[in-house]
Amino acid sequence: MFSKRVEEMRPSPIRKFATHSEAARLAGKNVIPLNIGQPDIETPQAYFKALASIEEQVIAYSPSEGIPELREAFAAYFKKSGLPYEYDELLITNGGSEALLYAFAALCDDGDEIMMFEPFYSNYLSISQVIGAKVNPVPTDPENNYRIPSYEEIAMRVTPKTKAVIVTNPSNPTGLVLKAEEMETIKRVCVEFGLFLISDEVYREFTYDNAVFRSFAMYPELLSRLIVIDSVSKRFSACGVRVGCIATKNREFLSHVLKLCQSRLAVPFAEQIAAVSFFKESEEEIEKVRLEYKARRDVCVEVLSQMKEINFKTPEGAFYFILKLPVEDSDDFTGWLLSDFDVDGETIMLCPANGCYVTEGGGKDEVRISYCISQDKLRRAMVILEQGLRAYSRR
Amino acid sequence: MFSKRVEEMRPSPIRKFATHSEAARLAGKNVIPLNIGQPDIETPQAYFKALASIEEQVIAYSPSEGIPELREAFAAYFKKSGLPYEYDELLITNGGSEALLYAFAALCDDGDEIMMFEPFYSNYLSISQVIGAKVNPVPTDPENNYRIPSYEEIAMRVTPKTKAVIVTNPSNPTGLVLKAEEMETIKRVCVEFGLFLISDEVYREFTYDNAVFRSFAMYPELLSRLIVIDSVSKRFSACGVRVGCIATKNREFLSHVLKLCQSRLAVPFAEQIAAVSFFKESEEEIEKVRLEYKARRDVCVEVLSQMKEINFKTPEGAFYFILKLPVEDSDDFTGWLLSDFDVDGETIMLCPANGCYVTEGGGKDEVRISYCISQDKLRRAMVILEQGLRAYSRR
Repeated sequence: MFSKRVEEMRPSPIRKFATHSEAARLAGKNVIPLNIGQPDIETPQAYFKALASIEEQVIAYSPSEGIPELREAFAAYFKKSGLPYEYDELLITNGGSEALLYAFAALCDDGDEIMMFEPFYSNYLSISQVIGAKVNPVPTDPENNYRIPSYEEIAMRVTPKTKAVIVTNPSNPTGLVLKAEEMETIKRVCVEFGLFLISDEVYREFTYDNAVFRSFAMYPELLSRLIVIDSVSKRFSACGVRVGCIATKNREFLSHVLKLCQSRLAVPFAEQIAAVSFFKESEEEIEKVRLEYKARRDVCVEVLSQMKEINFKTPEGAFYFILKLPVEDSDDFTGWLLSDFDVDGETIMLCPANGCYVTEGGGKDEVRISYCISQDKLRRAMVILEQGLRAYSRR
Repeated sequence: MFSKRVEEMRPSPIRKFATHSEAARLAGKNVIPLNIGQPDIETPQAYFKALASIEEQVIAYSPSEGIPELREAFAAYFKKSGLPYEYDELLITNGGSEALLYAFAALCDDGDEIMMFEPFYSNYLSISQVIGAKVNPVPTDPENNYRIPSYEEIAMRVTPKTKAVIVTNPSNPTGLVLKAEEMETIKRVCVEFGLFLISDEVYREFTYDNAVFRSFAMYPELLSRLIVIDSVSKRFSACGVRVGCIATKNREFLSHVLKLCQSRLAVPFAEQIAAVSFFKESEEEIEKVRLEYKARRDVCVEVLSQMKEINFKTPEGAFYFILKLPVEDSDDFTGWLLSDFDVDGETIMLCPANGCYVTEGGGKDEVRISYCISQDKLRRAMVILEQGLRAYSRR
């Protein structure tokens, strides 16, 4: 009756406990959200001013490509960040999500595969399912900090159906920031097997300690097969604006994606106009945000390090941890925390990590937490997590 | 290298002459757009006021379902229009386009078919292609005003791959408004073959003369298989706002579409908040707009009736005509009008109708024109069309 594609889709692991959370709130509990990558940092004021200044008589369809001002703003930002994309080598999308959907759709027919390092951002799976593509998972080892495996380990998993490799750098959910030799490995796989490389760089600015972000766009020999995904969501704390972009030097790829863009006509005009203002934010502003995330990460590391029963790796970038918990089923634990537990009327919402795996049983005792809320809330959340684990084991 | 799905997609017929048009403009010509359904009527002021009043600190992800205020506004509007959909029986989408994409994706796997009456809205084809579905065309006869064929003619075309019938009522591109007996025919096909019915009603208010709009939602026996597509674009002259919705009494269908919605996280927050204001527009405002479209249609009919070489049917609703022209290839004629012709420095952009057909050769000598621009411009456009046809035949 319904398509197999939707029958096979699972509800978003990030959002599937919304009903539990709502019930907890109705029961008078305060729920600290660790489940979603929704920063609490203020959206720049310039966005609101730009929205208020719109004077069009008619809010008309804008070009399917995106409005010129915004394409130019992205191009200028890319240039400043060392990515060589011109105005007409990028298309504006409804968030990074649509950029991913269109990249997958332009490369994959039903049953074709996208290779991803596991654990991966859970929406990569659902977006593949929307267009009938499959995930070809390459496991990474938490004991080795989720680092990229060797060329041989990746190469042996490429199949004739594999069309592309996708990498999130810095990584959601592991916090890995790719080293030069890891990038060389991935590049070699893509070049030798003729695969496209989709580089999701929405957390580009968020790296900590000695980790250095490098874009795959620095390899000239990769440019014809490189697709860069970007978004204003995390960098400018503007997740609800839904403005992203897809950039590539491959003109044929871009012409195919343009047809996909035409099928949905346009991205909202007002959001595009207002998003231009983000790119006038100073680098100091973004650096301030980065330092705040580093401090938040440090709070989590400090507290988590004292909990012997939790295994984790210190993230080098983005704003997520994968935590290995002493529970059998993190889905059950997540629901239990919302329905049956609180510390002084407060509890936490986790994101079970099974959605970040397609390998059977992967992530069953893991959760992803997001540290994009205040240090104070994070401290309280870590206490709730620790006490929750203890109470849960004594149930 | 690229997916078959995108290799097979054609550039949007509505937008594929954008480059020609740009060149004409650069050559100093004024181009009157008859190609696109972009009304010139002002977007209600309340939208701009609502945008300017947004006071959120953080523009966060909104619920994947849409914000409650907007879902309630759609539900209240539906109720006033005689459609029995509650707040939680509809999901907010990025325009009607995304509602269509998700309806197709929830019902079709690769190679499954959506039945549509030909000529159809060209984006139905591209949206099917995005998710790998096929168009199963049911030809209609211009000599019979594009009316819906008999039950037998439709039934003989249903295949085991046919999952749904889609109807645009009032129709883009033919202007047909369904009569009760046509609706009975379509209902019978859907019920007897177990098909879903996707009813695209975005032009609901725009009917003229004796045509009366009726929603398929008035048939209780259809409700479990009925999916209604709606959008603020045409009704409120807000195409660039990109807010639509998908409504159904089928809870299982809705739960599958919600998973698709979660895969793109959210619709822009500010657009949703501002779109709520549209539903406070008075019925008199919408009636004024309807009368203006009727007057525009009448201008076109008056002038076109005098051109013996053009065949057309008077539209009963929406704001499009299909014109059969004395040319061999309306693609060539459309390009020629932009590059090689003008009347006092002015020319027109048409939309070749071949994109509204999948049947080989369909629409080759036809164009779709949209009468959503001022009466004055429409009059000039009709003169240019007539003189253009004459000059083109003498080339």
